[in-house]
Amino acid sequence: MKTTKREALAWARMLSLAVALSVLLTCCAAQTLDVDGDKIVEVLTRLANFSDHENPAVTRILFTPNDMLARKFVKDLMREANLVIREDPMGNIFGRWEGSDPTAPVVLTGSHTDAIPQAGMYDGTVGVIGAIEAVAALQRAGFRPARPLEVLMFSSEEPTRFGLSCSGSRALAGALREEELEGRRDAEGRHYLQVANEVGYGAASTSQLLATSRLPPGAVAHFVELHIEQGPLLEREGVSIGVVTAIAAPSALEVVFAGEGGHAGGQLMPDRNDAGLAGAELALAVEAAVLATGAADTVGTTGTFEVAPGAVNSVPREARLGIDIRDIDGPRRDGVVAAVLAAAQEIAEKRKVRLSSRVLNQDPPATCHPDIVEAVAGAAQQLGLASRRLVSRAYHDALFMARVAPTGMIFIPCRNGWSHRPDEFASPADIANGVRVLALTLARLAGGEWAKSEL
Amino acid sequence: MKTTKREALAWARMLSLAVALSVLLTCCAAQTLDVDGDKIVEVLTRLANFSDHENPAVTRILFTPNDMLARKFVKDLMREANLVIREDPMGNIFGRWEGSDPTAPVVLTGSHTDAIPQAGMYDGTVGVIGAIEAVAALQRAGFRPARPLEVLMFSSEEPTRFGLSCSGSRALAGALREEELEGRRDAEGRHYLQVANEVGYGAASTSQLLATSRLPPGAVAHFVELHIEQGPLLEREGVSIGVVTAIAAPSALEVVFAGEGGHAGGQLMPDRNDAGLAGAELALAVEAAVLATGAADTVGTTGTFEVAPGAVNSVPREARLGIDIRDIDGPRRDGVVAAVLAAAQEIAEKRKVRLSSRVLNQDPPATCHPDIVEAVAGAAQQLGLASRRLVSRAYHDALFMARVAPTGMIFIPCRNGWSHRPDEFASPADIANGVRVLALTLARLAGGEWAKSEL
Repeated sequence: MKTTKREALAWARMLSLAVALSVLLTCCAAQTLDVDGDKIVEVLTRLANFSDHENPAVTRILFTPNDMLARKFVKDLMREANLVIREDPMGNIFGRWEGSDPTAPVVLTGSHTDAIPQAGMYDGTVGVIGAIEAVAALQRAGFRPARPLEVLMFSSEEPTRFGLSCSGSRALAGALREEELEGRRDAEGRHYLQVANEVGYGAASTSQLLATSRLPPGAVAHFVELHIEQGPLLEREGVSIGVVTAIAAPSALEVVFAGEGGHAGGQLMPDRNDAGLAGAELALAVEAAVLATGAADTVGTTGTFEVAPGAVNSVPREARLGIDIRDIDGPRRDGVVAAVLAAAQEIAEKRKVRLSSRVLNQDPPATCHPDIVEAVAGAAQQLGLASRRLVSRAYHDALFMARVAPTGMIFIPCRNGWSHRPDEFASPADIANGVRVLALTLARLAGGEWAKSEL
Repeated sequence: MKTTKREALAWARMLSLAVALSVLLTCCAAQTLDVDGDKIVEVLTRLANFSDHENPAVTRILFTPNDMLARKFVKDLMREANLVIREDPMGNIFGRWEGSDPTAPVVLTGSHTDAIPQAGMYDGTVGVIGAIEAVAALQRAGFRPARPLEVLMFSSEEPTRFGLSCSGSRALAGALREEELEGRRDAEGRHYLQVANEVGYGAASTSQLLATSRLPPGAVAHFVELHIEQGPLLEREGVSIGVVTAIAAPSALEVVFAGEGGHAGGQLMPDRNDAGLAGAELALAVEAAVLATGAADTVGTTGTFEVAPGAVNSVPREARLGIDIRDIDGPRRDGVVAAVLAAAQEIAEKRKVRLSSRVLNQDPPATCHPDIVEAVAGAAQQLGLASRRLVSRAYHDALFMARVAPTGMIFIPCRNGWSHRPDEFASPADIANGVRVLALTLARLAGGEWAKSEL
């Protein structure tokens, strides 16, 4: 027993020494971590030029010419950072920095560069360009990772083209079914595989596309994503770094009302079953159902509202609504979804319109891994940056990566909490802080050595 | 005094004889008026092929390739009917059958062939193809008009491209201002003159376009338009011919709400000013204001409802509504317009969104000329067809022609009162009846001779 105790003590001493040395080394490295926020913003500005709308509005839809140009831009940056590029059939792009143990599971970081119509230049992009810059800063600081480090640009985080968020990360996580991906069509009636094949990704079949994109079990040691908050908390409280503890449970519905339509002059009011008015009532019912929970964390949005035929002198024959409902509490979110579907049914009966509705997705919330939460919080502390723990109400690829690897997220403040709009903004200083925290977090998660010169 | 009385009696006898002879001649002619409804439907079906959507849906937007093909088709038919073609800079197409008095004011008949998105094949077209067929039937019956008879295809009756109904007839009537026409832009930001010039119509300036399209005062003796009812009355009552006595007063508004937008997950409910929800409330307020009049003749429609950016995960930053309000009572209609604008103001304040609204048009109602009402009713009676007087609640070029000439309209039944939808339908028999009534009405209004052989 004594011997064992002595041995244990010796081990404990050695371990403390090792940890102290590691913290010391990292501290020194952190002080010299050279990250230039203005330079990153300059790169983000160049990336923003690949847009279907004139800047400051950014529109970059999956596999369109501007998306392909943005992909080339990202790959060029990866090459400049000496990363080895690999792309999967879904269009996910990986840039690998080999570790001293090439067989170890990788530490992965990344985000997306696609953008919904008329969005801004920071959502997603900060986590891709920032990750490349974090790796470059680690290289400049003489760090050599033990585990391999990979920067990842996810394909199709935004649902614009196929109505499905996070297609790339769902596929990586094995959380995407063949029927699901083939059932989603773009405005031209084509599905993911067809469009992917046209631009040089893709496979012989959707089944093969998914099978070859899926990450092998245990391949990823950790996943961490840097992102703008898309909420007002950090800015409001003057805090530089948000340490994400959970990602809210999102749900998306499509509701279609169909009536007879008719001439806006000729059809008398009692003869109408106006699908547009049914849609208007439902949009207001979504708001009411959300407010009825009384919880600040419940949000609901009717983000798309299309009427057909869409002529000023024609009674709407069809209204098609895209509804998004989220909560950090899964069952409470499901309650709102049920209330909205019930309201749609009631409205359809009252207005004598036909109803069809689809739940496009209803994913569970994700919890961030305590190791990564600690690593991010520790990195912020080490850099002398104020941080707070918070919940992500926005959808992220991290939600799906959490199914296959310990996952975490780093948030930085954005102006007024705005995103998905042209005046979305994050300051160069906040971006640089986020990149420094990401770099140190990656170093902590990957393990490795700092160059002697940094001591 | 005695002499005068005798003279008067003699004149009266001669007049009765003349009228009796005229009615006898017309009766004989009417009995032999050879109109084939199936053949007309066959021509309408060929015309329906010039469509941006697959039949039965018909979409034919001003000066698009399909509109130009339809114009060529109509001109070819006019040539086959030995009509002399003239086109004005607005794109109105005239086919003239010379009268025995070529200097007399013309008797004009016609309608339009443009179609809103996903409309049907009868609205407007029946009054163009039917007019050509009416003239051909008169020719076959050996009629020779005293006044010139002209068939007219109006340009841009539908408001689809420039948001303005009846551009062609407004210009003919001198009811279109230069600033008005230049202020209207299509989706590509171009105005009428630019697009007209590209397809071979147009002029050196909008001012010249309007000046040269305007009909000289007194040029038109009568205008009569054949059209499907676009309402349910004739079909419901089993009446073949509607004799229109007035055309309802239409009004169109555009209302735009603008808020801040934001991310559907990140932006909490109290921080939102959702323009889409403001739009939903206004659409319902339009319905409420219309129903509040308690009058069956008041109708109001929110026919277009566009939200931007229009992504399921984005809070609408903008909602753009196109609202149509009509009544046969002008002041009552104006009351509804005022109520809708007041509701928009209230909603904007409550939801903290910015409001801009424009009254796109607010035209007065038109009364049909008693001479034409009598001519149409007489023609129907002569053909043994049941007729009833009614009001047109739909917008027509006749509304503007009424400003420069005695005007009337002939309605035929359409299935369920439907129009502006792919399953819009009028039976071959009803179309043939309408064309026969039109032909006899034109003969009555133009005056002239029936061939001896018809006696």
